[in-house]
Amino acid sequence: MDKFNYTMLCDFYELTMGNGYFVSGMQEKISYFDLFFRQIPDGGGFAIACGLEQVINYIENLHFDEEDIEFLRSKGIFDEGFLEYLKDFRFTGDIFAVPEGTVVFPNEPIITVRAPAVQAQLVETYLLLCINHQTLIATKANRIVRAAQGRAVSEFGSRRAHGADAAILGARAAGIGGCSGTACTITDQLFGFNATGTMAHSWVQMFDSELEAFKTYCKCYPNGTVLLVDTYNVLKSGVPNAIKAFDEVLKPMGCRPVGIRIDSGDITYLSKKARKMLDEAGYPDCKICASNALDEYLIRDMIYQGAKVDMFGVGERLITAKSEPVFGGVYKLAAVEDDEGNIQPKIKISENVAKITTPHFKKLYRIYDKNNHKAVADLLCVHDEVIDESRPLTLFDPQFTWKKKVVKNFEAKPIQQQIFKDGKCVYKKPAYEDIVKYAAAEIDTLWDEITRFENPHTYYVDLSQKLWEVKNFLLAENNRQTAD
Amino acid sequence: MDKFNYTMLCDFYELTMGNGYFVSGMQEKISYFDLFFRQIPDGGGFAIACGLEQVINYIENLHFDEEDIEFLRSKGIFDEGFLEYLKDFRFTGDIFAVPEGTVVFPNEPIITVRAPAVQAQLVETYLLLCINHQTLIATKANRIVRAAQGRAVSEFGSRRAHGADAAILGARAAGIGGCSGTACTITDQLFGFNATGTMAHSWVQMFDSELEAFKTYCKCYPNGTVLLVDTYNVLKSGVPNAIKAFDEVLKPMGCRPVGIRIDSGDITYLSKKARKMLDEAGYPDCKICASNALDEYLIRDMIYQGAKVDMFGVGERLITAKSEPVFGGVYKLAAVEDDEGNIQPKIKISENVAKITTPHFKKLYRIYDKNNHKAVADLLCVHDEVIDESRPLTLFDPQFTWKKKVVKNFEAKPIQQQIFKDGKCVYKKPAYEDIVKYAAAEIDTLWDEITRFENPHTYYVDLSQKLWEVKNFLLAENNRQTAD
Repeated sequence: MDKFNYTMLCDFYELTMGNGYFVSGMQEKISYFDLFFRQIPDGGGFAIACGLEQVINYIENLHFDEEDIEFLRSKGIFDEGFLEYLKDFRFTGDIFAVPEGTVVFPNEPIITVRAPAVQAQLVETYLLLCINHQTLIATKANRIVRAAQGRAVSEFGSRRAHGADAAILGARAAGIGGCSGTACTITDQLFGFNATGTMAHSWVQMFDSELEAFKTYCKCYPNGTVLLVDTYNVLKSGVPNAIKAFDEVLKPMGCRPVGIRIDSGDITYLSKKARKMLDEAGYPDCKICASNALDEYLIRDMIYQGAKVDMFGVGERLITAKSEPVFGGVYKLAAVEDDEGNIQPKIKISENVAKITTPHFKKLYRIYDKNNHKAVADLLCVHDEVIDESRPLTLFDPQFTWKKKVVKNFEAKPIQQQIFKDGKCVYKKPAYEDIVKYAAAEIDTLWDEITRFENPHTYYVDLSQKLWEVKNFLLAENNRQTAD
Repeated sequence: MDKFNYTMLCDFYELTMGNGYFVSGMQEKISYFDLFFRQIPDGGGFAIACGLEQVINYIENLHFDEEDIEFLRSKGIFDEGFLEYLKDFRFTGDIFAVPEGTVVFPNEPIITVRAPAVQAQLVETYLLLCINHQTLIATKANRIVRAAQGRAVSEFGSRRAHGADAAILGARAAGIGGCSGTACTITDQLFGFNATGTMAHSWVQMFDSELEAFKTYCKCYPNGTVLLVDTYNVLKSGVPNAIKAFDEVLKPMGCRPVGIRIDSGDITYLSKKARKMLDEAGYPDCKICASNALDEYLIRDMIYQGAKVDMFGVGERLITAKSEPVFGGVYKLAAVEDDEGNIQPKIKISENVAKITTPHFKKLYRIYDKNNHKAVADLLCVHDEVIDESRPLTLFDPQFTWKKKVVKNFEAKPIQQQIFKDGKCVYKKPAYEDIVKYAAAEIDTLWDEITRFENPHTYYVDLSQKLWEVKNFLLAENNRQTAD
């Protein structure tokens, strides 16, 4: 999968623009693009950046094959010089990004690309779809994991994913979001995210009786028995047969059952009854796993009502982020360099104030309280600004500038890292398990008020005085021009 | 993409079950599985089956590589005999399916697999994710296309898709659902679904002025000029500058502009004003394209309020099917063969009546009224039943059996085709453009009452008398057993 050439997975306008830059002699114009988002899905308080590894693979592999160029030629609109130029097309620029697993907030650059115009423009679609998808799923998964309050959550969604990538990389992202396992075999193989699974209803139906199906399974997996108990009737048939199979097969072998799974019906009610039956039969250590269209809200309610569930299998509502399946990351021009290499900040205006971009090549700092290592605010600065940690730092709301806050005894940490320099990857991709650990540590830096499901506290993402002035100068200039 | 081996993209339980069948000597037990869905997304009246081509590629390529088997061995739970058996694992069974583009309804098999147990079980996840995804998008796309009432709808969603496959195959499905174009270049390259595109806001920002950006674009593409007019201010800047660029660059060349695009703001209002400005400037033929988080409901309202839009670019809400991003296809055991080859129908019971399956190896007929070639009802029969078209046919509701309907002068057309026979593909995959045409023709066979957005008429999917009896016999038998 890493080797597939996704260069042609671009919006066609990236090629028409690329050709346009080329024939206008602008193809080498150094451009700065920011990838950022404007809103956190589900009204949440933060997102978890995810997908950088696949972005790196994509950039390293960026090139046009002969057949790609032939296809473009067949469209009849591209300059021959441009098609020629595409033959040797490689990424030669710089990329800065926050590591995967980093907690991120609206309006701050997850990725910044600095590259010749044609290159920077061409990578737009893939970068967006990769980051949008995995960030969406990691963020959603973490909501579900938080709802489960320490109980295990396993990702079960492949069958309802939007295609193969959505299944494979969605499971990858779910692990970064905190899921403890997946049903997706290939994600385990590719990333080492533990895949597990036991049986479908078809296993039970395949035998002449449920008991026979259960006993056969116990014989096959005496140390890993999880029985699906809702094929016919959970309490009248499934659980009694499971207990019988445990008694008749596992007990004589000296083995203990791992669990049962309930996949339909009123799981809160059924789990309480099943728990009692298992306890009374001498299997208090037999866990109960629940699945069936669960999400953070249902899990919260189930726990609130005392459901006896030890593990949640979460499928379609996680893998599609059903409640809000769009992560609205955008990729916007922030600056260009003139012929002398001076950076000219650029702004995109909109009648919708939330859609106005923050111009310039920027540096993103996260401000931590040194007393407790909690994140206090993020500060977007001009790229060469340095924050003096020895002096109190005044933060202000970029819209309501009278809202101020002075921070003392803080650490200002730049949270983007350089990933590519002059087209070479200068970043060591972390191992999957390290990303998982890092994401968990990141969430520990947040105040509880930020991690609430509903109406979380809005984390501050402020602009430095210098950056604020650049933005407001460009806004005023635009107003002047359109008023002319 | 066709060559990628997705064999390991399976739920892990398919492997634990496979191993279980193997060590129990059941691996060759012939099993029948149906892939079907229970509910149409968005409360719609029908779905459009899509994704079969990718299923065929997957099945033809089904095999375990050495490294796959090594990975499975490392899990420490699989029988060595089973791992050995996987080395030569190929699909040897039969597959029946409705062609892509076919209109389908709840509870009827889109795909039926007849194969040895291990094989039939293993393909579950990929078949589901492939059909679920593309059927979802084709169905959603068709809703949007219907809302546009003959105006062109182009698919713009790659950047918000759930990964690369979701972008590429989502665009493919959108075309089958009726979109007239896509922004996704690689989908054009792979399937011949026309990709188009012009410029992003970054193109406009890259120049010192909007006018210069527009004029440069006109020079590059004098015969394909579409200008994005909302970077600064649509009516004060974008449209006037577009007109100036048309006048100063295109007119002297004898070229006409193709269109303008509005991507933000109140598009209904802006489009009316822009239309007027273009008309007055002598460009009544210049089309107006609208984009920005559109869907069928917004498009319907825009048209209702007289928006002057000729073409809709639809992104995130189409490519993710945002309003309902889960297509709930399931894959259920319907029958097994005993050692003599007799088919034993199997049923899955549920406390939720809608989740009870229809057992047996079935044949799906669509009943057409010969007078107008409209579809009247679908009839699920036992596999060897033949419908006598020369005699009136009595249909009855499988739940409320007193609800009856007698059909005369009809054609009963079996709508599944055999795709694989003994592991060999016996089906000629249609060309993409033929699938598109076929899908459009299929929708023409529906009464308007079925194609309504809200509260459509529920199309009849009935059971033959014989199949109804099989199902009710199994239900009664289960009741008897759990009552014991």
